[in-house]
Amino acid sequence: MSKTIAILAPGAMGSAVARRLNEHGARVLTSLKGRSEATLKRAADAGMVGAEDEAIADADIILSIVPPGEAVALAERLASLIVRREKKPVVVDCNAVNVDTVQRIEEIIGSAQAPFVDAGIIGFPPQRGGKSPAFYMSGEHAKDVAVLKDLGLDVRIVEGPVGAASALKMSYAGIVKGLAGIGSAMVIAATKAGAADALRDELALSQPAILARLEVALPDMIPKAYRWVAEMREISGFLGPDHPASQIYEGFARWFEHLAEDAKGEAADVALMKAFAASIARKQTLGRLL
Amino acid sequence: MSKTIAILAPGAMGSAVARRLNEHGARVLTSLKGRSEATLKRAADAGMVGAEDEAIADADIILSIVPPGEAVALAERLASLIVRREKKPVVVDCNAVNVDTVQRIEEIIGSAQAPFVDAGIIGFPPQRGGKSPAFYMSGEHAKDVAVLKDLGLDVRIVEGPVGAASALKMSYAGIVKGLAGIGSAMVIAATKAGAADALRDELALSQPAILARLEVALPDMIPKAYRWVAEMREISGFLGPDHPASQIYEGFARWFEHLAEDAKGEAADVALMKAFAASIARKQTLGRLL
Repeated sequence: MSKTIAILAPGAMGSAVARRLNEHGARVLTSLKGRSEATLKRAADAGMVGAEDEAIADADIILSIVPPGEAVALAERLASLIVRREKKPVVVDCNAVNVDTVQRIEEIIGSAQAPFVDAGIIGFPPQRGGKSPAFYMSGEHAKDVAVLKDLGLDVRIVEGPVGAASALKMSYAGIVKGLAGIGSAMVIAATKAGAADALRDELALSQPAILARLEVALPDMIPKAYRWVAEMREISGFLGPDHPASQIYEGFARWFEHLAEDAKGEAADVALMKAFAASIARKQTLGRLL
Repeated sequence: MSKTIAILAPGAMGSAVARRLNEHGARVLTSLKGRSEATLKRAADAGMVGAEDEAIADADIILSIVPPGEAVALAERLASLIVRREKKPVVVDCNAVNVDTVQRIEEIIGSAQAPFVDAGIIGFPPQRGGKSPAFYMSGEHAKDVAVLKDLGLDVRIVEGPVGAASALKMSYAGIVKGLAGIGSAMVIAATKAGAADALRDELALSQPAILARLEVALPDMIPKAYRWVAEMREISGFLGPDHPASQIYEGFARWFEHLAEDAKGEAADVALMKAFAASIARKQTLGRLL
C-alpha cells in the first residue's frame, strides 16, 4: 500500500524532497493555508497535495523541514493535531537545530504519544534525476522510517539517541559554513589592503585544497548568507552559552547578517568575494595553459 | 664583504633563521642580556653572537622577530639606538601584527631616519638543510634587503606599501588558523555528543580535503594555541573594532586560550582532538587495506 508522507513546509528543500518521494510512488501532503502564489505553484510542481490538518495528522510520516527558528512552533502545532488521533504518525524533525532544541521538540511530540526521529540533512535539495542529500537519523524510532530509503532518500542511521543526528548536522555546518565565513572575511579584508593576489598565490602553494574550497564556497554562499544567520546562532547554542568557542559562532551570525544586507544592497563586499573566486579560476586556467 | 644581520629575539623562529643566514656566510648578532640559559644555548647553537646595543645598531639589517605584543616596544628600543648613528641599518618587522600596528612601527623607525620594511613570515622555522618559510616583504625599501635571498631565505616581494605584507600574513593566518579553530571546536563538541564517527565519515565523503587538513592541523595546533591567542587579537584588530567579523577572531582568541590552558592542565579537550585525528588516520589505513 502506498505510503502517505506529510511535509511541512513546501520550501525549496521541502518541495524538492516531496518531488523525490512522489516520483517513488508516495502520496505527499502539505499545508497550503495562507501561502503565496509562488509557494502554491512550487508545491503543485512537486506533486504535493494541499491538505487539511486532519489529513496531515493521518499521514504515516510527517517531515518537519522549516527554518530553525520555526521548528519548535511547528512541533507544537503538530502535537496539538496528533494528540487527538488514535493512529500516530512518526514525526521526523529535519531542521538545523541544536541538541537542546531537538530534545525539547522530542518532548513536545512525545506529549502527543507519537514516535519521534531526529534528522539532519546534509547536502543540496535533490534535483530531478540527481542524488539525494544525506538524511542522517538518530533515536530509537529511526528504523521506523526506513521506508524513506525505498522512496528515494539517502537515509543514514547515526547510532545514538535523539540529538546525535542534530549534533552531526551542527558540527558539520560549523566546519563547512565556518570556513566560508572566515574565508569571506579574510578575502575581503586582504583585497581592501591590496594583498588579494599574494593571498591567492600563497594559498595555491601551501594550502591548495583550502583555495579550491574557497573558489566554490565564496560565490555559492552569497544568496544563502541570510539563511545561515539563524543556523550560526543554533551552533552557538549547540556549544552552550558559556562555552569558550560560542562567541566564534555569534560572530559568524553577525558576519553573515552583514553579507546578506550587503548582497541585497550595494553589493560591495560580495563583489570582492566574486572577484577573488574568479581570479582563482583564471589563474588555474593560465596554469594549465603554460 | 660579509653582511652583518641582527636578529631580535633569539626565539624558535629567530634562532632558526639565524642558523640559515649563518650557514650562508652572514654574521648574525643578537641581544642576550638577561636571557635564560636555554636561550643562550639555542643562540649559540644557531651561531648567533651576543652583542651590545651599539653593535646591533651597526648591523646592515635588523630583523625584528618577536611575539606580536612585543613588536612596538622593540621598535621603540631600536629607534632609540639607531637615531644617534650615522649609518642606518634597514629595519625589517617580521611580526604577525596588523596593518595599523606595522604602520605605527614604520613611523617609530622613520623617526630614527632608518629605512623600514614590512615583512610577514608564512611557514615553519627553517630546519637544517630544509626549506625556508616564505618571507613576504612590502614597502619601498623591500628591495634593499634582497641580499637575504642570497643568504638562504625565501624572500618574496608583495607589490604595495608597508602594510601589504602584514595584511597577507593576517589574512592567511586568519584562514588557516581559523580553520584549525572551528575544526577543533566542532570536533570536540561532536565527540561529546556522540557524533564524532558520523562527522568523520560525512567529511570523508563530501569534504575530504577539509578532513585531510584537520588530520594534520588538530594535533599540530595543540602546543601552538598559546601563541595564537595574541595573533587572533591582531587579526581582530586588522579587521577593525567595528568590523562585523571582528567578533569571530575575538572568539578564536578566547577559544585558543581555553585550549592552551587545557593542554597544560587536564588535557581533556586536546585528548579528544588527538583521538579524532588518529581515527582519521586509522580509517584511511583501513580503507587502503580493504
